[in-house]
Parts: sequence; structure tokens; C-alpha cells
Amino acid sequence: MFHTLTIIGVGLIGGSIGMAAKERGLARRVLGVGRTRGSLERACALNAIDDGFLDFAGAVREASIVVLATPVDRIAAQAVEAARHCPSGALLTDAGSTKAKLVAEIDKHLPGHVYFVGSHPLAGSEKRGPEFAAANLFQDRWTVITPTPRSDGGAVERIRAFWTALGARVKLMSPEEHDRALALTSHLPHLLSAALAGLLPAELFELAATGFRDTTRVAAGDPELWTAIFAHNQTAVRDALGQLTHRLGDFGQALDASDWKAMDALLTQAKKVRDALGS
Amino acid sequence: MFHTLTIIGVGLIGGSIGMAAKERGLARRVLGVGRTRGSLERACALNAIDDGFLDFAGAVREASIVVLATPVDRIAAQAVEAARHCPSGALLTDAGSTKAKLVAEIDKHLPGHVYFVGSHPLAGSEKRGPEFAAANLFQDRWTVITPTPRSDGGAVERIRAFWTALGARVKLMSPEEHDRALALTSHLPHLLSAALAGLLPAELFELAATGFRDTTRVAAGDPELWTAIFAHNQTAVRDALGQLTHRLGDFGQALDASDWKAMDALLTQAKKVRDALGS
Repeated sequence: MFHTLTIIGVGLIGGSIGMAAKERGLARRVLGVGRTRGSLERACALNAIDDGFLDFAGAVREASIVVLATPVDRIAAQAVEAARHCPSGALLTDAGSTKAKLVAEIDKHLPGHVYFVGSHPLAGSEKRGPEFAAANLFQDRWTVITPTPRSDGGAVERIRAFWTALGARVKLMSPEEHDRALALTSHLPHLLSAALAGLLPAELFELAATGFRDTTRVAAGDPELWTAIFAHNQTAVRDALGQLTHRLGDFGQALDASDWKAMDALLTQAKKVRDALGS
Repeated sequence: MFHTLTIIGVGLIGGSIGMAAKERGLARRVLGVGRTRGSLERACALNAIDDGFLDFAGAVREASIVVLATPVDRIAAQAVEAARHCPSGALLTDAGSTKAKLVAEIDKHLPGHVYFVGSHPLAGSEKRGPEFAAANLFQDRWTVITPTPRSDGGAVERIRAFWTALGARVKLMSPEEHDRALALTSHLPHLLSAALAGLLPAELFELAATGFRDTTRVAAGDPELWTAIFAHNQTAVRDALGQLTHRLGDFGQALDASDWKAMDALLTQAKKVRDALGS
């Protein structure tokens, strides 16, 4: 399907893309770009990539498709830089958790001989590194593709085919629509989870059972990655936090007024949503 | 160790107590009290109890130990009612998620020929019913025992031995200390989880990945049970919600001011706590 797939950033997501592509015979060669020889060697040993590079030039020289799986605050600059070394007609995409800001930057600065379409595979966890990568990470999970009016129709279809071939289900949204949705479904849960985890004093660790652990699991995520996500999706996250604060006010009011009927109604509505969502 | 163990309420927790007691030979007979013949038959079939009763009188007539595993708003009245039918010297405890209110009520109304010491095994899930019970539910988990100045020392030791024999690690706290701690480690996470789940519109279900699912898992819990818990621990939950609202304000301020250094510091502190807590 592709001659050479180059993955920039071979961590959990990048490593999983490499493993899935190799397992499914999606590319003849899978190359990786990393920051240290050690990380590239680990990715090679895990069979996530065939060969590793510390610089873009060599890694993308023959790339038919390039995927940027680096933190959101680095993707735009790296895409533009990598594109300069890509052959004509190469296809670029990314795996960033936010879209509007970086897609706009890339659309503005990308050289004309390559194509870019933003992507966000809704997979991963609070873990980092290729050690946690898995060939089936995208299987039956959603990947959002975020074309803009400037996107090439053929490039969008090829990016859709790429994620579909990795096992993902694909959905198209505008970058802004994506960011508003993910503020609620991913960025706000992270913020909440961190706010709650941060309140727990060491002397209460033993009393934190599965409920606390589930609710705060994502707070173990990398602070630098998440700070960049919040910075990139500031407005939508603020809106989502405003909605949540309002809802917490409803709970607080029911508690203050001993209005157990209102409390039951709030909990019942939430349970309906959570049950409908499934495990 | 005990002649007859009677469990009032044979759901997930009550059923697990029965299974663990039978597996570990903790009692010669395990009797259950339920609200319907169907639930008792299911508990018998699952080997959680040896025999089932719809009324207290027959079930506790020869009980050496009685465990109330019913919703917190029913435990006090049921304990007092069951105690009237218990033989002299019988030991009563419970598995309720809140302690101060029900322990005070029981201490006030319990007949003098029996002993009561409150308990809270930190186990369970958002599921209900004996189908989800397991003999190892308490294994290596904490159970809090909440004696008061009125508690009999020998009774406290026997209750401690009971939970230890079920595999639990036991911690003693005052009922009030327990309720303040659990407000933060269990009741607040539930409230938050429900507030977040309730915000999700159906059209965004597909975009709710593992982060959202983990953070909202407990919101699938039973609204009636949880309304009773909030009603029983109103003051401590309000205090915990106040703490959380304040912390969310810190996150909101960092977002408003684009203060990414402050955001990183908040996320880093939360990650430290969550990492220290373990999986």
C-alpha cells in the first residue's frame, strides 16, 4: 500500500503504528525518527520499526507517508521541517490530541509539493514509551481525521485508508469540531482526574480503593504532554470546565438543601449515560 | 470460629462475605436474609449461603455473628430489629460505606444482650447482586472497623478477627474519622464521576475513549444507594466538594491566565500522588 512509512516519535502511539503497519503489511519499510539512539534501538528490538534515524532528512527522503506522533506543541514545526526533505507527493499526517491550532499552522507553512491531513487516533493510555506499544492498539477504536477546506480530496481518502488498514474506524470532523468534542471527552476528564488525585494526602492512600483509582487513573499521564494539550485547546477546555463547574454546583446545591430527590435525579441521569456508553 | 453466620442482604458484598466465610471454614452455617425468594435461591445456588430467610427472626435465632450488608439508610433500623431476635452475646457488624450516623443510631437503640461494632470493607464495584460476588473480594483489601467509646473491647477484637479471617487487612478509626476520609477517597470521586458522565451528549459517545470511561466508571453505581451515602455523609462530602472546587479554580486560573508553568506544576503534583498510589 505504501513504499516507505516514516514515523516521527516512536513512543506508545508511534510504536503501535509501526507494529500495526508491519503486522498488516501496510508498508514495505517502516522507518522511525527518535531523540536518542537508545529509544530507536528499543523500537527496532520491539519490531516497531525497521530502521531508526536521529534526523528527519534521511528518514523521510523516500517516504510515501509520514506520521508525526510527537507532543502537540512540536508537531507543526516538525511537520514543516520534515516536509522540506520529503519527495514530491508525500502524504503527512499526525496523531496529536488537539487539532485546530497545529492544523492551521501546518496549512500556513507547509511546502506545496506534499499533502497534510490531521489525524487523532483515540487510543493510548497514561503510559509512555514503545514498551507499551501494541499492534492492535487501533483495532476497532475511532480515529478522527480533520480535513479543512484546503485539504486535497485524494489525500484525505488515502489517510482514511491508512487508518482503516491499521484496524481503526474513521470519522471526519473539522479541526474545531474535534477540539470542542475532545475537550469534553478527554481533556476535561484529565483535568478533573488530576484535580482529584492532587487532593489525596499520603495518610489516606490506604483508603483509596478501586473507585478512587479508576477516577484518577489518567492523572498519571505526562504533565508536559498534557500542559501542551491544555495550551493548544485552551478555549474549549475552559468552556468544558465551566459546564462541569455548573453541574458540580447542582450537586452542591442538592447537598446543601438536603434535596435527596434532586440528588437521586442527578445520579440517575449520569448512570443512564454511563450505562449507555458501555464498559 | 463461629457457629452460625447470618448475612442480611445477599448482594455483591453480602454474597462475597458468605462465599469467603464458607471457603475458609469460618462458620459452621451461613444463613442469608433477602427481600425475595429469587435472590435467596440465586445466593444458595452460587454457594454464598447455606439457607435463605425472608425474615430476621428465623435467620438470627442461633446467630453467633450477624453482618448487615444492606444500603446505609436501612442498616441502623435493621440492626436494632435483628438484635431483638438474636441470642445473648451475639455479635453484630455491618458493611456500610458511611459510619457516624448509623453507628450513633445503633449505639442508642441496640438491646443490651448483644454487641455491635461498625465495619466498612473497602471492596465492591459499580455492580450489584450476588452474581458479582467473589470469595476473594476482601483479600488484601482494607476493612475499616469503627469502634466508639461505648464498644466492648472483646467484641472489637472478634470483629477484627472475623475480617482478618476473610483475608482483609484491618484498620481501626473512629466513625467520624472514617467518614471524613471516605468523603475524599470514595464519595467525592463518585460525585465527580457522575457530574462528568452526566455532561456527555449521546452524539459524543463514540469519542469517549478509555480516559473518559475510567474516570466515569463508578457513575454506573446505583443512584439510590449513593443518594443514601451522600445523605449520611452530607457535611464531610460538602467539605470535600469545597476542596475540589477550590482546586478546580486553580486549574481554571492557570487556563485563564495561560500560565502553563502553574498548569504543569498542578499536573506534576497530581501525577506524583497517583504514581505513589500505584495501580
